[in-house]
Amino acid sequence: MNKYILPLYNRLDIAFIKGKKSLLFDENKKDYIDFASGVGVNSLGYANKKVVKTIEKQAKKILHSSNIYRIKPQEECAKKIVELSTYDMQCFFCNSGAEANETAIKLARKYGNVKFKTPKYKIITIKNSFHGRTIATLKATAQEDKHKYFAPYPDGFVYANDINEAINMIDDTTVGVMLELIQGEGGIFIQDIFQVQRLEKILKEKKLLLIIDEVQTGVYRSGNFLISQYFGIKPDIVTLAKGLASGIPIGVMMTSLKDIFTFGDHGSTFGGNHLSTTVCKAVLKILEKYSNSGKLGENIKYFNSCLQYFTDKYPDIFLQKNGWGFMQGLVLKNENDLSNIVNFALKNGVLVLKSGKNIIRFLPPIVISKKEIKEGFKRFEEVLINYHKK
Amino acid sequence: MNKYILPLYNRLDIAFIKGKKSLLFDENKKDYIDFASGVGVNSLGYANKKVVKTIEKQAKKILHSSNIYRIKPQEECAKKIVELSTYDMQCFFCNSGAEANETAIKLARKYGNVKFKTPKYKIITIKNSFHGRTIATLKATAQEDKHKYFAPYPDGFVYANDINEAINMIDDTTVGVMLELIQGEGGIFIQDIFQVQRLEKILKEKKLLLIIDEVQTGVYRSGNFLISQYFGIKPDIVTLAKGLASGIPIGVMMTSLKDIFTFGDHGSTFGGNHLSTTVCKAVLKILEKYSNSGKLGENIKYFNSCLQYFTDKYPDIFLQKNGWGFMQGLVLKNENDLSNIVNFALKNGVLVLKSGKNIIRFLPPIVISKKEIKEGFKRFEEVLINYHKK
Repeated sequence: MNKYILPLYNRLDIAFIKGKKSLLFDENKKDYIDFASGVGVNSLGYANKKVVKTIEKQAKKILHSSNIYRIKPQEECAKKIVELSTYDMQCFFCNSGAEANETAIKLARKYGNVKFKTPKYKIITIKNSFHGRTIATLKATAQEDKHKYFAPYPDGFVYANDINEAINMIDDTTVGVMLELIQGEGGIFIQDIFQVQRLEKILKEKKLLLIIDEVQTGVYRSGNFLISQYFGIKPDIVTLAKGLASGIPIGVMMTSLKDIFTFGDHGSTFGGNHLSTTVCKAVLKILEKYSNSGKLGENIKYFNSCLQYFTDKYPDIFLQKNGWGFMQGLVLKNENDLSNIVNFALKNGVLVLKSGKNIIRFLPPIVISKKEIKEGFKRFEEVLINYHKK
Repeated sequence: MNKYILPLYNRLDIAFIKGKKSLLFDENKKDYIDFASGVGVNSLGYANKKVVKTIEKQAKKILHSSNIYRIKPQEECAKKIVELSTYDMQCFFCNSGAEANETAIKLARKYGNVKFKTPKYKIITIKNSFHGRTIATLKATAQEDKHKYFAPYPDGFVYANDINEAINMIDDTTVGVMLELIQGEGGIFIQDIFQVQRLEKILKEKKLLLIIDEVQTGVYRSGNFLISQYFGIKPDIVTLAKGLASGIPIGVMMTSLKDIFTFGDHGSTFGGNHLSTTVCKAVLKILEKYSNSGKLGENIKYFNSCLQYFTDKYPDIFLQKNGWGFMQGLVLKNENDLSNIVNFALKNGVLVLKSGKNIIRFLPPIVISKKEIKEGFKRFEEVLINYHKK
């Protein structure tokens, strides 16, 4: 507890002062293999030479100008994002996943307002989703225990238990469905690909919107730039943030709806500035090359085999493994083990996260090496062996 | 219009590629005196050596870690902000002014929820205010023409024409009043100091909250760290953003209400990370020293005398000058002149902004030199002389 900071986080009593690749160092020079990447942010790990150089070079020129002027790196960065997505879309830049989802909600509502005789505004979201901490994105988050204290909320969000229920809930006021293809906070739960495709088909028939929140699944977390691509769908809106600039705040809402928003409907002061978009462009180029080289796929495979090994070898601790790509979870038999294992892992030099009530979550840097994975899981198994003994 | 970017801004067809102090350069190496500072963001201008060095050094160590760990520069930055404010407060870090105001609204609502027998939730805001672009902060923004298309909005925001009306509007469900002491977007309108003090007194008697939005007035824009300090008030909540890190996205909500929020009530992935808070700390140290040296006060005085000269010399163009510190406006007689003068100024190498319908807004970098001011106004007067002739 620090006397100058509001106690909003249940912080572990450790502070990292530097990192190198996927290794972090605390104040006592102890090192930690990072399987958490700042909750999916540090896609290139730490002190990536190309990133450092890009930041240095840009800082000497200009960090920020207003969006009332053209911003060249923003234009180049948008081009790169659109090309990687393979979708015919345009981008809006903001500063976080919450802001990207706010933009998506505003766009969907304006679409529902101007494109139908009777306005449509209702957005269906899925149980245990997480879409942000602003008032509207918190209401979009289908976890009612998170909605205490902060009412009144905006109407227009309804919750479905699953995609089939979402389809059945569509009515005359529904404008779209917003969902994560893997729920990051909600227990690394993967949506069924055929259900998602069916949802897409029904929405398209009704001219309603499919909004995919890729704040956590995007930027190669799934192995591909977007996990939407694996699902074989064409969303109307995609939101991105976390790993885009490997540690610099940035969010993006991209959409195929190019004629809905007009001047003044939305905006951001910092969004899309020279620093964040120049770094984003550099990060995406590195990740694209890395993914194309086949190394990302190989390491994901190796990472998965290690997790499978743990579920096989420690059946009294783990029920199963959940996940996709570099977004993985080990489901614990006993939810009381969660904090213990996360804390013991920290003490033994490997960072892992929590998800839901009983899942150890793994979100390593996208470029983590096989050697780092090996060392991290060696440290993790030491925790399990000792834990096992108790 | 760029084919990869949503057309949300009415952009001027110019792109800046670098800057030095308060001078910007476009692709053709033409230079511009910056009286806009990226709408109040670039408090230290461009390529400040200390800022560049701080960014370089930090990028080589670590840009970001999660708030589930302690972040040392965040702690130091919070300490600096609290000390400069002179208020007994704690900070929450986020990524923008909108996110800071979202946090303020959530905090006020939780306060109203847990501190009274019958929950209070209504926040009064002032006509022509601007509090952000998210759904809730847009509803808090008392400009009803901005509320088309994006309903349903959250209830709980009501608008007063002025502070006296706000006082009269307080009822059993009111939890607080949120206001800018100078309205930046709403025409550089300064609130009356005695009305604000009366409002503070009445709110304190009723245990209701005074929320001051200093997103644009804060960080020495007024000459002082906060303009609240000049008003002799002690707000319950203050929000900051724009100039805090001179170009890196960051927002802060600070409050004397230390026992309302608990673990999990709110959060941010990027907010308060190593890069933004390290740079913020460096920026604030430079600005504090600069302000203490007396130079800031001198230059503000000089800047004001130039604006006064224009209103005196060009009475057929200007009605008057409005503003405080480095947040100034020239009120035009004819609102049709606004776009013309802003565009002619751009062509003649000086950047100015719009506010409201008929105000030329000036938000220079806080550290702009007398020489730069002189040159900027020389270029600006050339526009007026020629404009005058037409």
